[in-house]
Amino acid sequence: MTIPATPPSLRRSHIQHIKVEATGDADRLARAEITRIAEPGDPIMGSLIEHYGPQGALEQVRQGVLEPEFAQAERERAYGEGRRLNLGQVVTGWANRAVSAASRAPDDLAGGRLLIPGDPGWPSQLNDLGRLRPYGLWLDGQEDLRFACLRSVSLVGARAATAYGTHVAAELSAGLSDRSWTVISGGAYGIDAAAHRGALAGVAPTVVVLACGTDVSYPSAHQDLFQAVRERGLLISESPPGVHPTRMRFLVRNRVIAALSRGTVVVQAAIRSGALNTAAHAAALNRQLMAVPGPITCDVSTGCHALIRQNRATCVTSVAEVIELVGSIGEDLAPTARGPVHPRDSLNEETKRVLDAVPARIPQGLATIANAAGLPLPTTLACLGGLESAGFIRRTADGWRLSPPSP
Amino acid sequence: MTIPATPPSLRRSHIQHIKVEATGDADRLARAEITRIAEPGDPIMGSLIEHYGPQGALEQVRQGVLEPEFAQAERERAYGEGRRLNLGQVVTGWANRAVSAASRAPDDLAGGRLLIPGDPGWPSQLNDLGRLRPYGLWLDGQEDLRFACLRSVSLVGARAATAYGTHVAAELSAGLSDRSWTVISGGAYGIDAAAHRGALAGVAPTVVVLACGTDVSYPSAHQDLFQAVRERGLLISESPPGVHPTRMRFLVRNRVIAALSRGTVVVQAAIRSGALNTAAHAAALNRQLMAVPGPITCDVSTGCHALIRQNRATCVTSVAEVIELVGSIGEDLAPTARGPVHPRDSLNEETKRVLDAVPARIPQGLATIANAAGLPLPTTLACLGGLESAGFIRRTADGWRLSPPSP
Repeated sequence: MTIPATPPSLRRSHIQHIKVEATGDADRLARAEITRIAEPGDPIMGSLIEHYGPQGALEQVRQGVLEPEFAQAERERAYGEGRRLNLGQVVTGWANRAVSAASRAPDDLAGGRLLIPGDPGWPSQLNDLGRLRPYGLWLDGQEDLRFACLRSVSLVGARAATAYGTHVAAELSAGLSDRSWTVISGGAYGIDAAAHRGALAGVAPTVVVLACGTDVSYPSAHQDLFQAVRERGLLISESPPGVHPTRMRFLVRNRVIAALSRGTVVVQAAIRSGALNTAAHAAALNRQLMAVPGPITCDVSTGCHALIRQNRATCVTSVAEVIELVGSIGEDLAPTARGPVHPRDSLNEETKRVLDAVPARIPQGLATIANAAGLPLPTTLACLGGLESAGFIRRTADGWRLSPPSP
Repeated sequence: MTIPATPPSLRRSHIQHIKVEATGDADRLARAEITRIAEPGDPIMGSLIEHYGPQGALEQVRQGVLEPEFAQAERERAYGEGRRLNLGQVVTGWANRAVSAASRAPDDLAGGRLLIPGDPGWPSQLNDLGRLRPYGLWLDGQEDLRFACLRSVSLVGARAATAYGTHVAAELSAGLSDRSWTVISGGAYGIDAAAHRGALAGVAPTVVVLACGTDVSYPSAHQDLFQAVRERGLLISESPPGVHPTRMRFLVRNRVIAALSRGTVVVQAAIRSGALNTAAHAAALNRQLMAVPGPITCDVSTGCHALIRQNRATCVTSVAEVIELVGSIGEDLAPTARGPVHPRDSLNEETKRVLDAVPARIPQGLATIANAAGLPLPTTLACLGGLESAGFIRRTADGWRLSPPSP
């Protein structure tokens, strides 16, 4: 791959400290190259692009040395955070990968579309990530990412989910999709896959955020699922086509899932689940964090219960409760849980007491019922009359008894 | 039953506004009589006893008319609460029941022990109920109620509990009992019975608070369970022997369950469960209120989730978490939920990245691994050396691969 020569106006000395957000082809090609040479979410690369734009950043990488001012500022920042930073090593790493990337990728944007900051379809909520913002997003699918994510919820959880967990994920997801909410998740086994499958049953698109290239089916058992999402939603990734996932890439990917949506629902998660990593990102980004409770006898709900107990997540039990939290204030209120209304609810306290005192089968006289109800005879008699007219009780020759239940 | 003649010193004119808390036999007999003529938790009877003592209260009931000053104060209180109060009817009701009670109960304390306020065994936390305090408690069993309830937790929940609910109730209850915490519940089907059965498997006594006389087995299927509790714990009731339960008595009884214990755990409850009534009492009495989460697919956990969502109850998932809330501050801390510790946790970030880049089966060379890890060659080589000595990876003729999992 050939990087276009830097135009004189963008020489290093000129572009220092200028934030570049142009969307020309040169920028797009530079960002594509950067996704090949730097790990996603590398804060130093993020800063470099922030300061010099993608082309300026790339130029420094190719020369194998960073601007002294920038390097000094990064070293100080790292020192302030208690880390030692070997910038020479970092830049050498990038330069090595630039060489091997150039040898492997003859076509600049082969195998995918690259969406970059400044594009009309760029979801602006990703800018909340600051210097951890993706360099660009590789897309596969026909949907508009920005539009799809305007009303979106992330559903995340354990790969080792139980039948309960996948059932709940699919139900929530289908319900959200039916109400035009996009479901975002990660494409893994368990909760992720159930969430996408549920969303595909609804009307809204579903978005899979991968930790590998959009052309790599990982896990391979989800090849058909990913194909369905390509047709009905979007596969997106920070990594260029051909890249395989690593543990680190999964963790780093989680911040994108959290940042894209208005809120994250943890459906099932053990205490050390990667889903809790996404949850932490959502909370740090001031997104709504929600958790679904489950049986306390099951390890895979432990993480959800811990989030609820620590008041970090809101306990949610239905689609309506999720939408109430991520929806517009006053518009998407969940109905309060209510039980069935029973006919006896409308009775006053005295009448209820009399009703409770009327025997179910063997009729009793006024005095016995009044005594059991702890009420005077005239009151009891008045209540019995009302209960009889309302059909609660029956008068027989021997006294009153409850009406038999309706068939 | 014969009420002893009121001694001259306790004539109405003398005892007005004097709080009597004597524990003589006359008081005990008067309170026994009052449990027969007034419904448990009747606030007017509570006030009457508060003002005139049990004997003075009884005397007014037998005369069929209340002190004008007292009556006026009660009418004003009711008016302030937006209720109309027909005190004449109330007193007539009591008087009628006094007559029939006298005809049915030849022996004053037949069939049970009556514990009254001021007795050494009276649990003083019941005094938090104010004028709703029980007139006395009928006991069956050998345990000391006050001592048994010093460290106690109420476990309540649905009669229509699921297998999950009864399992959790029994496990929590057995765990609490094993740690010398008394379990209090109501003796009904479902959660109540499971709680008592679990507690009987532990070492602490269990207390059943009945809504009927302690000699009435309701439900009758629990006859054996109640017999076991008689031998290993206590059956207690506000109602005298022979009294059958009513819906009202169940609800009124719940305040005793809530008041006796340091906290109430709702194990399973639908939205209209009586257990939520106990929960409301516990919250009103500033006792700890806890709820156990469960599957959101199950109606009988809806009430628990509603309590948690409204921040009225703390979500609890283990015996330790319950004890942390009801136990002594700093002494009974629950351990934070933790997952297993993995060997890779101790590696630094760079080494983790290299480990993630090492292939599982087919060995790769240094350059490939360094490239995949995004790190310079020297760093990668150093990390590979460390990983090899620690046994994470193996060096072969063709490069490095992960060590096979230990058998």
